[in-house]
Amino acid sequence: MTTRPSGRAADALRPVSIETGFARHAEGSALIRMGGTEVLCAASVEPRVPPFLRGQGKGWVTAEYGMLPRATHSRGPREAAKGKQSGRTQEIQRLIGRSLRAVTDLTALGEISITVDCDVLNADGGTRCAAITGAWVALRLALEKLVRNRVLARVPLTAQVAAISCGLTGAGPVLDLDYDEDSTAAADANFVLTETGGIVEIQGTAEQAPFSQAQFEALLRLAQDGTTHLFAAQRAAVDAALAARSDAS
Amino acid sequence: MTTRPSGRAADALRPVSIETGFARHAEGSALIRMGGTEVLCAASVEPRVPPFLRGQGKGWVTAEYGMLPRATHSRGPREAAKGKQSGRTQEIQRLIGRSLRAVTDLTALGEISITVDCDVLNADGGTRCAAITGAWVALRLALEKLVRNRVLARVPLTAQVAAISCGLTGAGPVLDLDYDEDSTAAADANFVLTETGGIVEIQGTAEQAPFSQAQFEALLRLAQDGTTHLFAAQRAAVDAALAARSDAS
Amino acid sequence: MTTRPSGRAADALRPVSIETGFARHAEGSALIRMGGTEVLCAASVEPRVPPFLRGQGKGWVTAEYGMLPRATHSRGPREAAKGKQSGRTQEIQRLIGRSLRAVTDLTALGEISITVDCDVLNADGGTRCAAITGAWVALRLALEKLVRNRVLARVPLTAQVAAISCGLTGAGPVLDLDYDEDSTAAADANFVLTETGGIVEIQGTAEQAPFSQAQFEALLRLAQDGTTHLFAAQRAAVDAALAARSDAS
Amino acid sequence: MTTRPSGRAADALRPVSIETGFARHAEGSALIRMGGTEVLCAASVEPRVPPFLRGQGKGWVTAEYGMLPRATHSRGPREAAKGKQSGRTQEIQRLIGRSLRAVTDLTALGEISITVDCDVLNADGGTRCAAITGAWVALRLALEKLVRNRVLARVPLTAQVAAISCGLTGAGPVLDLDYDEDSTAAADANFVLTETGGIVEIQGTAEQAPFSQAQFEALLRLAQDGTTHLFAAQRAAVDAALAARSDAS
Amino acid sequence: MTTRPSGRAADALRPVSIETGFARHAEGSALIRMGGTEVLCAASVEPRVPPFLRGQGKGWVTAEYGMLPRATHSRGPREAAKGKQSGRTQEIQRLIGRSLRAVTDLTALGEISITVDCDVLNADGGTRCAAITGAWVALRLALEKLVRNRVLARVPLTAQVAAISCGLTGAGPVLDLDYDEDSTAAADANFVLTETGGIVEIQGTAEQAPFSQAQFEALLRLAQDGTTHLFAAQRAAVDAALAARSDAS
Amino acid sequence: MTTRPSGRAADALRPVSIETGFARHAEGSALIRMGGTEVLCAASVEPRVPPFLRGQGKGWVTAEYGMLPRATHSRGPREAAKGKQSGRTQEIQRLIGRSLRAVTDLTALGEISITVDCDVLNADGGTRCAAITGAWVALRLALEKLVRNRVLARVPLTAQVAAISCGLTGAGPVLDLDYDEDSTAAADANFVLTETGGIVEIQGTAEQAPFSQAQFEALLRLAQDGTTHLFAAQRAAVDAALAARSDAS
Repeated sequence: MTTRPSGRAADALRPVSIETGFARHAEGSALIRMGGTEVLCAASVEPRVPPFLRGQGKGWVTAEYGMLPRATHSRGPREAAKGKQSGRTQEIQRLIGRSLRAVTDLTALGEISITVDCDVLNADGGTRCAAITGAWVALRLALEKLVRNRVLARVPLTAQVAAISCGLTGAGPVLDLDYDEDSTAAADANFVLTETGGIVEIQGTAEQAPFSQAQFEALLRLAQDGTTHLFAAQRAAVDAALAARSDAS
Repeated sequence: MTTRPSGRAADALRPVSIETGFARHAEGSALIRMGGTEVLCAASVEPRVPPFLRGQGKGWVTAEYGMLPRATHSRGPREAAKGKQSGRTQEIQRLIGRSLRAVTDLTALGEISITVDCDVLNADGGTRCAAITGAWVALRLALEKLVRNRVLARVPLTAQVAAISCGLTGAGPVLDLDYDEDSTAAADANFVLTETGGIVEIQGTAEQAPFSQAQFEALLRLAQDGTTHLFAAQRAAVDAALAARSDAS
Repeated sequence: MTTRPSGRAADALRPVSIETGFARHAEGSALIRMGGTEVLCAASVEPRVPPFLRGQGKGWVTAEYGMLPRATHSRGPREAAKGKQSGRTQEIQRLIGRSLRAVTDLTALGEISITVDCDVLNADGGTRCAAITGAWVALRLALEKLVRNRVLARVPLTAQVAAISCGLTGAGPVLDLDYDEDSTAAADANFVLTETGGIVEIQGTAEQAPFSQAQFEALLRLAQDGTTHLFAAQRAAVDAALAARSDAS
Repeated sequence: MTTRPSGRAADALRPVSIETGFARHAEGSALIRMGGTEVLCAASVEPRVPPFLRGQGKGWVTAEYGMLPRATHSRGPREAAKGKQSGRTQEIQRLIGRSLRAVTDLTALGEISITVDCDVLNADGGTRCAAITGAWVALRLALEKLVRNRVLARVPLTAQVAAISCGLTGAGPVLDLDYDEDSTAAADANFVLTETGGIVEIQGTAEQAPFSQAQFEALLRLAQDGTTHLFAAQRAAVDAALAARSDAS
Repeated sequence: MTTRPSGRAADALRPVSIETGFARHAEGSALIRMGGTEVLCAASVEPRVPPFLRGQGKGWVTAEYGMLPRATHSRGPREAAKGKQSGRTQEIQRLIGRSLRAVTDLTALGEISITVDCDVLNADGGTRCAAITGAWVALRLALEKLVRNRVLARVPLTAQVAAISCGLTGAGPVLDLDYDEDSTAAADANFVLTETGGIVEIQGTAEQAPFSQAQFEALLRLAQDGTTHLFAAQRAAVDAALAARSDAS
Repeated sequence: MTTRPSGRAADALRPVSIETGFARHAEGSALIRMGGTEVLCAASVEPRVPPFLRGQGKGWVTAEYGMLPRATHSRGPREAAKGKQSGRTQEIQRLIGRSLRAVTDLTALGEISITVDCDVLNADGGTRCAAITGAWVALRLALEKLVRNRVLARVPLTAQVAAISCGLTGAGPVLDLDYDEDSTAAADANFVLTETGGIVEIQGTAEQAPFSQAQFEALLRLAQDGTTHLFAAQRAAVDAALAARSDAS
C-alpha cells in the first residue's frame, strides 16, 4: 500500500473554503474551493414553477451544471458551441437537483422556483461533490433572503446536505479524490449525506474489478466522517454572510 | 406495514424470462421480460474501435437505450422526433455500458467494438435493470459467435453481471419494484452485481426523506439474494441458445 | 426470366401474421409479421388536437415511424442519438399518416388525436407497407375501445386500408419484395389500397431505367390481388381481439 | 362539372418559360416559370463523390430544395432559422435527386458529384415538378460545360426528364394544378416522365376519398400529353444557351 | 497606388438597379442589383408582435438573411441542411434589423410586425449593404400598402436608410468593394447612413494592420457621397411602384 | 445635461484590475474587472491549426465567449441547455478573435492554434470590451510560455490591443458605459484600439435617432484617451506575472 500522491492521510479532506456573494446579482451564491477544484454556485429565484407543478401550491428546486472549457488540464469543447450538453453534464445536474430537493420542504416553499447554477472554474476532481456542498449554501442564502423580504415565514430546509467522493486506490480506501486519484482508482463512490447522518444519494462504480460489500462500507465510513467538516464549513459561511448582512442593515 | 400492491413477498422477483434470437440480424440478442417490463437487447459487432482507443489493441463495449413511445402508460414523445436524448436516457445507457465493461476483458477482446441496443417494448418499472441483465446475455452470445468464427480464442468475460432495483415502500424494504411501487417509494436503489458477489454499480436515491445506513444494507441484502435467480436465468438462456446452435450445426 | 430468390411465385405474399395486444398500454396495438419483417404498431388516443385543427370539431390521425438500430443486416445509427430523423423516416411516417386519414371520418372522430407508432423490430423489406397494414388494425382497435367507452357512437372508419410493394425484378413483375429483391429491383412501387378497390396512394420509382405504362399496370394488378389476403388477415385479427375482449367482459 | 378557377382547359399547361444563366457562378442554371411558380435551379460540379461511392469510378447527382420564406401567400418560417428541414422538403429533394439520377449514366460521369439546388422564389403550386423540369436543364448545361472543358467525352444523359402534376378537381381530371386547385383537389399525382414515354416516378395521393384505377389512368394520360411541351421548352432553352456560348467563343 | 480591378474610379458605385414587386405575395419587395450582387428583399406584415413587446402598443421590424448555396463562386453548404445559421448570417440579419428600426417610428406602427427577408441570389461583395438598401424599399412599400388599406394613417418612417462598404485597397480608399477587393482589402468598413446625413451604424475592421483615424474619415467621406446615389435609386423605385399601383386603381 | 448615474466624470473609466493565473491549467489567463463587470479569459495552446489553414505554415488565434447564466440581473437561459449560441454571443466571439488576430503575426506563430475563452462571471455593461482587453493579456502570457519553452523564438505580437465602449447619454458623450447607461444610451460604440493609436475595430450603433459625424468623433476621442489606462493596466499585469515566474525559477 502506497501513500497518496498528495501526501494526504487516507481520511483527510483537501483544504476547503466557501466564499459567499461572488455572483453579485444572485439571490444567494457560494464560490467553493476544495483544493484545486473551484465551483461557483449561484441561486436564482423565480416566482413561478414549471408547467408540471402548476396549481399544486408547491415549489421547485433544480440545478444546472457547467464547466468552463479550460477548467481542465487540456481544453474541452464548449457545450454551447457543440449544441448539446454531454450525458455526464446532465447526469451531474440531475444529481445536484435531487440532492437539494431531498432537504427542501417544497410545500413550505410555495409556488417559487430556485435554480442553482454550478459552474466549475477550475477542476481537480470531485467537482460534482463540491457543487452539491456549495449549492446548499447558495440555496440557503437565497431562502434567507426570501425570509428577510417576508416572502417566506421561515427557511424551508429540513437538513444540510453535502457530498464527498471516496475511492479504492493504491493507498487503500481514501477520502476526497483529486484528479490524479480519480483517474486511476479501482472504484469510486460519491456520497450525498445530511448532517444528521442520513443518506441522500449513493453512486458507487467499479472502474476496474467489482468491489466487495466490506470495501463499500469502508468508503461510506470515510464519507460520514469527512462530511462533518463540510457541514461545519457550510455553517461558518452562512453565519458569516448573515452577520455581514445584519451589520449592513 | 402494508402488503405490496402486487401481493408479492418482499423478497420476491417478478416472473423472469429471457428469449434469445429475437433480433434476427444481431450477433446476439435477448428479449427479457420481468413481469410487465420487456426489453429487447441486441448486440452488434464491428471490427473497429472508437477514435480514443485506436492503436491500443483493446476493444470497446458500449450500450444505447431507448423506449418505444407507447411502452409506457401514457405516450411519451419520440426522442428521435424531439431531436435529442433525455438526460435520463443518457444516464441509463452510460450505466449499462459501464456495467458490461466491468466484466469484459477489453484487452482479450482486441480491436473490436460491441454495441448493445436495449429498447424497451413494454415498461412496468425496472427497465434499466432488466436491460443490464438482458444485455449481458446478448453480449455473451455475440462473443460466443466470435469464438465459433475463430475471431476470438475464448469468451473474454470475467463474470456474469445482472441488476435489480430495491426500494423502501409502505411494505418495508422490497425487491424488484414495479411501476406503482417505484413511483411512490421513499427511496430506491439499483444494484449491479456479479454472480461472484462483487458490486459493479450502486445507485441509491432518497426520493423523499434521507435513509439510514441500516436501511441501505437491507436493500443490498435483498439485491444479493434476488440476483441469484437472475444469474440462473441468464445461464439457462445462454445454454439453450448454444445447444440450439450446436444442434443446427 | 429467373425464379425469385425465395422460390415464391410471382404473385405470392410472404407468410403474414397479425398479433394484437403486444403493446400492453396502448389503446390498440398490432405486431405484424410479413416473412422476416416485423413491425409493432401502437395506437395512442389523446383528447385534444394539434393547434391547426383546434375549434373545428374535427379529429386527427397521425403516425410516427422508427427502426430499431439492429433491425437491419448491419447496425444503423440510432436516430435519437444522431439528433434527427432521416428524410426516409419522415417520408414513411407522412405516408402512413395520410393512408390512415384517407379512410377515417375525422369529423365523426371529433376533437381527438390518435397517433400510431410504427416501430420496426426486424426488417426484411416492405417495412412501410407492413406498417400501414398493421397500423390500420391498431387504429381500428383503439377506435373500438372509444366506442366501448361510449366516447364515440360508432367506429369512424370508411374502409380498410392495406399496403404492399411490387417490383420489376429478374423474375418479372413480382409481389411483396423482400430485402434481396428490393435492393436489386429495376423498379418498385408501393400501393396503398382499400378493400373496396380504391387507390389511396401510389409511389412508383424507377431504380434503374424508366418503366412503361404496361409494366406499371402489371404491378398494380399484382397489388390488387395480393392485398385481398391482407384485408382478410386484418379482419381475422380484429375479430379475434374483439372476441377475446368480449369474453373478458 | 365546373370550369377551372384559371379558366384553363383541362389539358392546358400554364405559360412556361426557362431562362438560363441566372445563377452566374453555377456551372449550369435555369430559372423556370410555370405561371406564378418560379424556381431557380443551379447545378454545382465537384470533383469528388460522397464516401459511400468512393473508389467505384462512378459519379453522383443529387438535389437540394428550399423555398424562400415569402415565396408563399403567407410567410413561412425559414428552415435555416428553425434548424431543420421539414419532412416535405426532404421528400421533395429526394424525389428530384432520384429523377435526375434515373436519366444519368453515373458510370460515364466518373468520380464527379453534381448538386442541383432548387430554390423556389415564388410559389403557386407545382413547385416540385417545376424544380425537376428546370433541374434537368441546369444539369444538362453543367454537363455540356464539362464536355467543353474536356473533362467528359460526351454528355452522360440517357433521356430528358420532366414532371407535371395532375389532379381530380371539380372540373374533372386536370393538368398542372395551381395552388388553388392543389389545395382543394380530391386527389393529385405527380408524374416524372421521360421524353421517350418512360415513367421515372409516380406519386399519387387521395386527399379525400380513394380514387379508381380509371381515374388514375386519366391523370397519367394528361401528364403524358402535357410533358411534351415541357420537353420542347427544355430543348429550346438548352439550344439557346449553347448557341449563345458558341457565339461567345 | 494601382487602379481598381474593375477599372472603376475610387468613388464610383457599381451600376445599381432596384426592381419592385418580384416577390409576388409579399406586401412589399425589392430585387436590388449592385453590379454582380443581387438580393431579393421581401417584407411580410403580421398583425402581432413578439412576446417581449406585447401590450406596449408598439410594433416591431426585423430581418432575416440568407444566401442561396450557389450564390457564390463555389457552392457553400445550405444552412437549413446544416441545421444552423452561421455567426456571419446572424450578425448580418441583426444589422439589417437594427438599421431598419433606427428609421421606423415603432410607436406609430402599432402592434404590427414586419419581417424583411433578404436572400442573396448572386453574390459579388457587399451583400449586407445591398440588403439594407433594398430592405428599406420593401419596408416602405409594405407600409404604403398598410396606409392604402387604412391600417395606418401615415408611413411611420423617419428617414431613408442605405448602406455601402468602403475599404483600404492597393488603389487607396475606395467605395463599394466587389468580391475581389473585399477579399484583399487591408481594412473595410460598412456604413449605414440616412439621407439627412445621420449615422445609423458603422462597422470598421482592420483585416491586416490597424488603420488610422484619417484613413477612417476618408472612408466615411466616400460613403457619405456614395449613398446619395442610393437614396435617389430608392426614391425612384418607390415612386415608380406607387405610380404603377395608382394607375392600376 | 445631467450627471452620470455613477457620478463618474464623462471621461472616467471604472476601476480596472487584471489578475493573472486564475485559470490554473491555462497557458495564460487573466481575470479582468472593470467596475462590476468581471471576465475570466483563458488562453489554450494546441499544436495544430484548423483544416482551412493546414500546410500553410501559419498559426491561428480565435476566441469563444460565454456568460454564466446568473452573471446578469435576472437569470438568462444557459446556452448549452438551449442547444445553441445566440447571435449576440457569436457576434462577440468573432469580434474578440478578429481583434487578437489583428495584432498577432500568424506566420511567426507557426502551425499553432490559440483559443482564448472569455467567460463573464459578473456583468455590468462592457463585457465584450473587457473580454478583449483581458484576452490580450491571456494571449500574451501564453505566448511568453511558448517562448520560455523554446517553441517560439519571440512573442509574435505586433501591438497591444484593448477595447472600450463609449456612448451618447443624457450626460453627453461618455466613456465606459455601465449597464444602466448602456441600456438607455441614444447611441453607443465599441472601439478596439492599439497602444500605438491604430484602429482595429469600430462598431457604432444608433439605438434611437441617427447620430452625427461630430458626435462620433467625440466618442472616438474619449476612447483614445481612455484606452491609455487600459494599456498601462495590461503591461502592469504582464510584468507582474512574468516577474513572479522569474522568481519561481
